[in-house]
Amino acid sequence: MSELTVIEGFPAALAEVATAVEGELTRLLPQPEGPELRLHQAMRYATLGGGKRLRAFLVVNGAALFGVGREPALRVAAAVELVHTYSLVHDDLPAMDDDELRRGRAACHIEFDEASAILAGDALLTLAFEVLAEEETHSNPEVRGELVAGLAAAAGCRGMVAGQAIDLAAEHSSIDVATLTRLHQLKTGALIAYASEAGAILGRAPAPLRQALHAYAHDLGLAYQIVDDLLDAEGDTDQLGKPAGSDAAAGKSTFVSVLGLERARTQARMLAQQAIKHLDPFEEKANLLRDLTHFVIDRTS
Amino acid sequence: MSELTVIEGFPAALAEVATAVEGELTRLLPQPEGPELRLHQAMRYATLGGGKRLRAFLVVNGAALFGVGREPALRVAAAVELVHTYSLVHDDLPAMDDDELRRGRAACHIEFDEASAILAGDALLTLAFEVLAEEETHSNPEVRGELVAGLAAAAGCRGMVAGQAIDLAAEHSSIDVATLTRLHQLKTGALIAYASEAGAILGRAPAPLRQALHAYAHDLGLAYQIVDDLLDAEGDTDQLGKPAGSDAAAGKSTFVSVLGLERARTQARMLAQQAIKHLDPFEEKANLLRDLTHFVIDRTS
Repeated sequence: MSELTVIEGFPAALAEVATAVEGELTRLLPQPEGPELRLHQAMRYATLGGGKRLRAFLVVNGAALFGVGREPALRVAAAVELVHTYSLVHDDLPAMDDDELRRGRAACHIEFDEASAILAGDALLTLAFEVLAEEETHSNPEVRGELVAGLAAAAGCRGMVAGQAIDLAAEHSSIDVATLTRLHQLKTGALIAYASEAGAILGRAPAPLRQALHAYAHDLGLAYQIVDDLLDAEGDTDQLGKPAGSDAAAGKSTFVSVLGLERARTQARMLAQQAIKHLDPFEEKANLLRDLTHFVIDRTS
Repeated sequence: MSELTVIEGFPAALAEVATAVEGELTRLLPQPEGPELRLHQAMRYATLGGGKRLRAFLVVNGAALFGVGREPALRVAAAVELVHTYSLVHDDLPAMDDDELRRGRAACHIEFDEASAILAGDALLTLAFEVLAEEETHSNPEVRGELVAGLAAAAGCRGMVAGQAIDLAAEHSSIDVATLTRLHQLKTGALIAYASEAGAILGRAPAPLRQALHAYAHDLGLAYQIVDDLLDAEGDTDQLGKPAGSDAAAGKSTFVSVLGLERARTQARMLAQQAIKHLDPFEEKANLLRDLTHFVIDRTS
């Protein structure tokens, strides 16, 4: 199978997971009712109907490597997307990144209000842990515990939230490439790594295979972020679904500002190659994860 | 033992748990370091050095009814206090209740800034689930799973966060006593009920005993809220550590505005008596929980 053929089939595979996880999220999110109706509406608005669902794709295809059933994989994928969504809702708030546009629509605090957005984010994060802890996610409580502890570690004060805190602290200041790398390893990398490893947790995979997925995710996550910075520097607002050029306007350090366009492009491609190399132990079973890497590098939004 | 004697010994018992859980929280919270230093400082500032730790007291004394070890009980107590603290940090934000004073000190977003307060709250909530999911909390993963799922249910979009959403929606409008009761059952009652039942989960207690604790907590939580409203209406700012009279100033419906002072006082005492009645199955082992009920009714801050 040529590389081109593989990539040609990829968007359908990505869309298939996006549709399936959307269905799972639709079931897991509360049906808006009672005097707390607006909270439930804000949770659904922020979560449903958008996003590439890359993290869900990582969970589902990581799980497939170990013969994990579809339903547990989709539940964990949904939990990861809930955490990702909560982080976007809070990051968009005026006191944080102050973005009014998200996934081509009004950000949650614009469509609703700031208080609803804060509470919706809080509730989405909480729901993610509830989903993982429930028996439907895995019959073995040990596995459920590992899933909860792993997600908390990836998302918390030594993971994603720490990354966002560093990002805010680094605003209006120029930082070196090492600090910038650490920032993104925490802010986006930690949850991407968790999504990649979650299938191995569900499948009780041996440590070396789990580590291979972690290494894959590490390189993929950084490549993803560099491409994000490239798109912000070169992309267009309509295609991105969020304002282009906002990093430069905010005086933010990015891989583009620190490395320059050309080196940033080279670095992203090198990381993608490394990521694919880490998938060797899985042979052709990991083809979709390889395709994802190409997709991440070549995406335009 | 006369009632007076029991109550006389109570403040020491409460202080003892507060000190122990403070030590546990000090260990569990991140040591401030790295470029995310400010996040860790905000988490510690918000969590340490204040509060009556009533929820921790409920966990520790609920656990004692079932012979649960001290260390697991303190970890669960710490997790509940982390969730309680996160809710205070987010509730105090300008977009929410806009309170500048908390536990006699500047609120987290005043001492730090809004972004740090949002992130610190997020990280505290996440840390609570991490603590519960770790093996040190209980050797049985089934128990850890039940603790995680229970906390998420109590704190999330059908529990505490729903209560805060109703509270915000009800601002500047008068609501009836049924809606007000439901609001507080969710906003404060759900976490208090969880704290009361957590010891039964840790101790794998039979369902009827767990239900007795749930019923106790239900009445205690409502009594607590009515006293809160009475203190806001009648108390003084210095003693409360937060501004007195803020509910009336904000035009909020409270048990005092809905029932009047006299009926609110009667209702609180009646609920306290009911709460104590639910402790009958535990005989004298539950004396400290009985004392807590008196304390809640008679407190001045």
